[in-house]
Amino acid sequence: MQIAIGLYPGFTALDFVGPYQVLTYVPGAEIVLCAERTGRVTDDRGTLHVDVEHTFADVPSPDILLVPGGPGSTEASAPGSAVVEWVRRAHETTTWTASVCTGAEVLGAAGLLDGGRATTHWLYCDVIEGHGAKPTQERVVFEGKVVTGAGVSAGIDLAFTLVAREFGQDLAESIQLGIEYDPQPPFDAGAPSKAKPEIKALVTAVMRPGYVPTGS
Amino acid sequence: MQIAIGLYPGFTALDFVGPYQVLTYVPGAEIVLCAERTGRVTDDRGTLHVDVEHTFADVPSPDILLVPGGPGSTEASAPGSAVVEWVRRAHETTTWTASVCTGAEVLGAAGLLDGGRATTHWLYCDVIEGHGAKPTQERVVFEGKVVTGAGVSAGIDLAFTLVAREFGQDLAESIQLGIEYDPQPPFDAGAPSKAKPEIKALVTAVMRPGYVPTGS
Repeated sequence: MQIAIGLYPGFTALDFVGPYQVLTYVPGAEIVLCAERTGRVTDDRGTLHVDVEHTFADVPSPDILLVPGGPGSTEASAPGSAVVEWVRRAHETTTWTASVCTGAEVLGAAGLLDGGRATTHWLYCDVIEGHGAKPTQERVVFEGKVVTGAGVSAGIDLAFTLVAREFGQDLAESIQLGIEYDPQPPFDAGAPSKAKPEIKALVTAVMRPGYVPTGS
Repeated sequence: MQIAIGLYPGFTALDFVGPYQVLTYVPGAEIVLCAERTGRVTDDRGTLHVDVEHTFADVPSPDILLVPGGPGSTEASAPGSAVVEWVRRAHETTTWTASVCTGAEVLGAAGLLDGGRATTHWLYCDVIEGHGAKPTQERVVFEGKVVTGAGVSAGIDLAFTLVAREFGQDLAESIQLGIEYDPQPPFDAGAPSKAKPEIKALVTAVMRPGYVPTGS
């Protein structure tokens, strides 16, 4: 069981570390962090540098493939990009192909979302719609073997759901207890439907200046 | 506002990336990942290598200091270790000194938990008790300016609580919406009080072979 997580410059750290932390405890799983080139890949904040040891070419046919999101996903999903080509080819033989947040944009660019339901960060539903997806604001969406998660922290919920489906609920619950995933957010404000309007407007202005959402 | 996160070999990735992701969005905050030496610091799974650019000596007096946990915390908390010495000295001038999971062991070794309430990973309460702490199984504990979080994923809740106290609830809620922290675990099994007994026994046997918990 090989699990490959594909990085690119400008990824969001929690997008990949959330699922990484869960999946790394699957007995017998080989976790491979990979990128276009080996060496340093820096996150979207410019402060976390991951020293990557494997290229996409090293991992042509993982059983599970996961792509995180982040501001870098726009460039990473350009036609013919190394990430898109890797995802498109590897997807032919994966058991599961997954994305977190705007990592869905990469899956979309690889043609994997066309006509299917999918989720992404709440501010970027139009982007995956542009790739033919039917966007929803569910936390985790399974569409055949394509699994998409909502924004950033949703990768943790995605990973537990995936572990339960592929390896059973007992393993998922064991890992959940191991990392004490008993979330207790101090505020119930983590979804656009729950946030105060002025905070939703502020976050939109900061994350996506000039964007006017068409939906909720 | 300088926020330093101290790494050491054998840290658990989500312990630091959870709070890192939240704190990095504090306007004006300078996030510094640091370690005893610059260069590669590898996590407890052996697969995530962080390329660290700053030493503890570069960050002698951060405003907020955070130490993640992980199996490496035992060695990191040895008397006179670089991490312990850094924490002990820096704590004199911090606004907040925080730990996630068994990072509390390092705070304990630095003498910061003596006589106070604190939390850590549910399997390691006795370890911080050995440093004079009064362990609780709360998610996040404030004791003066010392803030401790429970196991691994609790660092996210810790960070939001800390941001709200130091910078206000509006900022905390804005960041929460930004990273879509609206957790929806597929199972309610992430605390020892909620887990099935056989799963609790299994996780104990894997994480801490031979250990017999004295409490719940």
